[in-house]
Amino acid sequence: MIKPYTLGEIASFLGTRLVGDGRCEISGLGTLGGASPGQLSFLSNKVYLDQLATSQASAIILEEQFADRSTANLLVSDQPYVCFARASSLFAVAPALAPGIHPSAVVDSGASVSESASIGPQVVIESGVLVGEGSIIEAGCIVGRGSRLGSNCRLHSRVTLYHDVKLGDHVIIHSGAVIGADGFGFAFDGERLVKIHQLGSVDIGNEVEIGAGTTIDRGTIDDTVIEHGVKIDNQVQIGHNSRVGEHTVICGCTAIAGSAMIGKHCVLGGASGMVGHLHIADGVEVTAMSLVSQSITEAGLYSSGTGQMKTSDWKRAVVRFQQLDSMAHRLRKIEKSLEDN
Amino acid sequence: MIKPYTLGEIASFLGTRLVGDGRCEISGLGTLGGASPGQLSFLSNKVYLDQLATSQASAIILEEQFADRSTANLLVSDQPYVCFARASSLFAVAPALAPGIHPSAVVDSGASVSESASIGPQVVIESGVLVGEGSIIEAGCIVGRGSRLGSNCRLHSRVTLYHDVKLGDHVIIHSGAVIGADGFGFAFDGERLVKIHQLGSVDIGNEVEIGAGTTIDRGTIDDTVIEHGVKIDNQVQIGHNSRVGEHTVICGCTAIAGSAMIGKHCVLGGASGMVGHLHIADGVEVTAMSLVSQSITEAGLYSSGTGQMKTSDWKRAVVRFQQLDSMAHRLRKIEKSLEDN
Amino acid sequence: MIKPYTLGEIASFLGTRLVGDGRCEISGLGTLGGASPGQLSFLSNKVYLDQLATSQASAIILEEQFADRSTANLLVSDQPYVCFARASSLFAVAPALAPGIHPSAVVDSGASVSESASIGPQVVIESGVLVGEGSIIEAGCIVGRGSRLGSNCRLHSRVTLYHDVKLGDHVIIHSGAVIGADGFGFAFDGERLVKIHQLGSVDIGNEVEIGAGTTIDRGTIDDTVIEHGVKIDNQVQIGHNSRVGEHTVICGCTAIAGSAMIGKHCVLGGASGMVGHLHIADGVEVTAMSLVSQSITEAGLYSSGTGQMKTSDWKRAVVRFQQLDSMAHRLRKIEKSLEDN
Repeated sequence: MIKPYTLGEIASFLGTRLVGDGRCEISGLGTLGGASPGQLSFLSNKVYLDQLATSQASAIILEEQFADRSTANLLVSDQPYVCFARASSLFAVAPALAPGIHPSAVVDSGASVSESASIGPQVVIESGVLVGEGSIIEAGCIVGRGSRLGSNCRLHSRVTLYHDVKLGDHVIIHSGAVIGADGFGFAFDGERLVKIHQLGSVDIGNEVEIGAGTTIDRGTIDDTVIEHGVKIDNQVQIGHNSRVGEHTVICGCTAIAGSAMIGKHCVLGGASGMVGHLHIADGVEVTAMSLVSQSITEAGLYSSGTGQMKTSDWKRAVVRFQQLDSMAHRLRKIEKSLEDN
Repeated sequence: MIKPYTLGEIASFLGTRLVGDGRCEISGLGTLGGASPGQLSFLSNKVYLDQLATSQASAIILEEQFADRSTANLLVSDQPYVCFARASSLFAVAPALAPGIHPSAVVDSGASVSESASIGPQVVIESGVLVGEGSIIEAGCIVGRGSRLGSNCRLHSRVTLYHDVKLGDHVIIHSGAVIGADGFGFAFDGERLVKIHQLGSVDIGNEVEIGAGTTIDRGTIDDTVIEHGVKIDNQVQIGHNSRVGEHTVICGCTAIAGSAMIGKHCVLGGASGMVGHLHIADGVEVTAMSLVSQSITEAGLYSSGTGQMKTSDWKRAVVRFQQLDSMAHRLRKIEKSLEDN
Repeated sequence: MIKPYTLGEIASFLGTRLVGDGRCEISGLGTLGGASPGQLSFLSNKVYLDQLATSQASAIILEEQFADRSTANLLVSDQPYVCFARASSLFAVAPALAPGIHPSAVVDSGASVSESASIGPQVVIESGVLVGEGSIIEAGCIVGRGSRLGSNCRLHSRVTLYHDVKLGDHVIIHSGAVIGADGFGFAFDGERLVKIHQLGSVDIGNEVEIGAGTTIDRGTIDDTVIEHGVKIDNQVQIGHNSRVGEHTVICGCTAIAGSAMIGKHCVLGGASGMVGHLHIADGVEVTAMSLVSQSITEAGLYSSGTGQMKTSDWKRAVVRFQQLDSMAHRLRKIEKSLEDN
């Protein structure tokens, strides 16, 4: 199914220097240790340097400094991992879709769909929707009234956009994601919780990718904003009125409460959390399953939690954790008594 | 698109005292700091008192005691935030749907759908289903055999109700939610895990709201129960056989294991968790990302976890956490040696 | 609706010894404390031994040693809980579906669907798909190009399989689950994040069950693998390139990062997490909301986190946690000063 490329074609596509046989056929990618002949591999982490000599890969992307350590065909680059990422697009197997609207799709007459767009089976497109050039909306997606997709977006199957959601260009959204559901806002009247209707929407920039099952809520008054280049993994929750800065990465299962302001080029580790109304500066990284419980004003690496232990040991540590304040007082008392002597 | 109201109409709708020009046209809502002329704002938190004088809002909802601090038109109320919530319904932009069944929907002949109900495109309604007056089932929803919706419910697009699920009146469920999937029950026979078929269902009261991607499992023998007025945010998981008491609030990404008994008027913070077979009293609040690991018998605020730290500092603290029991023993030994002297 | 069975029929189905009246009609299951006459119950946990004498159940499954403590009809077994699980299949109420393809389904002419399979309304089946004997694909499912289902699988409504996903036999997948979305892989080129196309797929063994809203990502180069008999609860995330060993149990809301290698017969507690590229040995159990932050080479029970506390006490403990390293140093200093004296 997958078209092979010559190594020369790949070198030219990547703009890398070729060492060896440019006519060598490459039909796929592999890791250094796992590649078969006919595959292209890469070295970006010195941990794998030992595998260079024995790799079965027909060609390897690597830095100049390691070029003399391999007898394979080589593509020489300062950024082997980035080149590998770029090369992966050549072998991508996600099915292409022809332009046009599948007859089972329900497209409102008041929607405007580019002729080069592709609308899959069982899709629903409501009135006032705009779908830009080359965008693909796969089977079972629902695009709510007045939502707008730029060019070359791809909604994988079963994505929901509520009404008035805006996507830039080259946005990818995976199956099951829900963009623009109501933010979670209620006022307690002493007896019951009165719903605060969510009058804003969601505004998503260019080249954003959103994972399967992720939910991004619409704003209460203004929009929830996801800036250009943000990458969001699966099952992430982003609360209403939040803003996520350009090129930030949010790993799977992260829970972000409402009105969060997250800077550019941040990394939120998997299953991390962030309580509402906090700010995070540019360049902050948060490790897995940590809770951001106060605003962070300086770039750097932040964590919470305790390390993993055998449960038998951990139970004792937890008891002591609960005595920690009293232990601190007792320690201080001893220090004073020793100072006094 | 949105119809403006006069301030007099809004005052009358809310039942608040009007100070100023009742003919003033209001076309939307805004925060004190962000509102434009033509918008209605509110003051419910004294933190924002300073913004009262400079707000561009054409009218402000506030308490009597602050009425002399503003020159805008005023709506005077003891509960400004609740009034704001009620006013938000006037400007809600969620598309209305006309009664009737979309031709692309598949409705079993053995289902009973009220004439005032609205069934969207690509919906599937199985046999024995009842849909009450004024209920709206949006595009792509699946309503399983024998499920019953009361009046004025709204299933946003792509909601699944499994078979025999019961919803009260005025229930709102957001896109991607799954109600009534099998509870997670298996018996290990020494070699493999034998499925325990889940013979109960899910019973949801009136005025419950359920967020996008949330899952509520059917009971093993009896029903999983969500009582009246409960509000559940996105991506919450509620295990089989649980009961959630009236007007309790469950924030996003919370994980509740099976057979949990949660009281009334509780608040479970975002990404919190609760292990199985525990009880929580009425009026308990749990802070974000805390794990309820024992039953809670008294109202109050509960937490677990550690605060966020720079990772470099945190790593040292984590090492010490693992030594905590031994530190406690050493502390006790010192105390004893000092006592003995 | 549910067909009653005689106790004799059930004893024969389970292969258990019957004590009492084999003609007794059983129409359902119940707990010891909650069962009504006509129901079958079980005793597997001695905690409930007291309820044996007063249970209203018409028959009880229990071990030989307790047989003389009850006057009900009895089914005697070494594994009462497993027998109860097996008996539950007799009373399962999940709707059956007749073989055939619903007229509203969109099935590509290049797909191959067994005549004994059942394809529900609004389903989409793309080219090259194989659906094995007796498999059921419920309403609104999307099965991507080239995916293969073995025999007797059941996809509940609104499941997505991306392209080239492989399921074994007797696989159950619940509503909203997404199998085969792109793994989360990007290379940072100094300015933006370059997507690494995910060229592998997902390979799922026999008798695997996958919960509602769960996501399992496709591998970067090789497949993500879920081995035979694995049971996965709702809203679990399994990152690309991971492998989950046979008969392992993963409870709800667990977040597993990429390239995780998890052994056989493990139990990952609810809302637990696992950072990327780690190994877990066979027979490891992880308690709820614990983070696996290092590989685990020995079977056993592991935990992280702190126990739940009143928030007022907890705040003090958290402050001390942040001082823990300094407390440890101060403790050591005191010990030294006492040793020196």
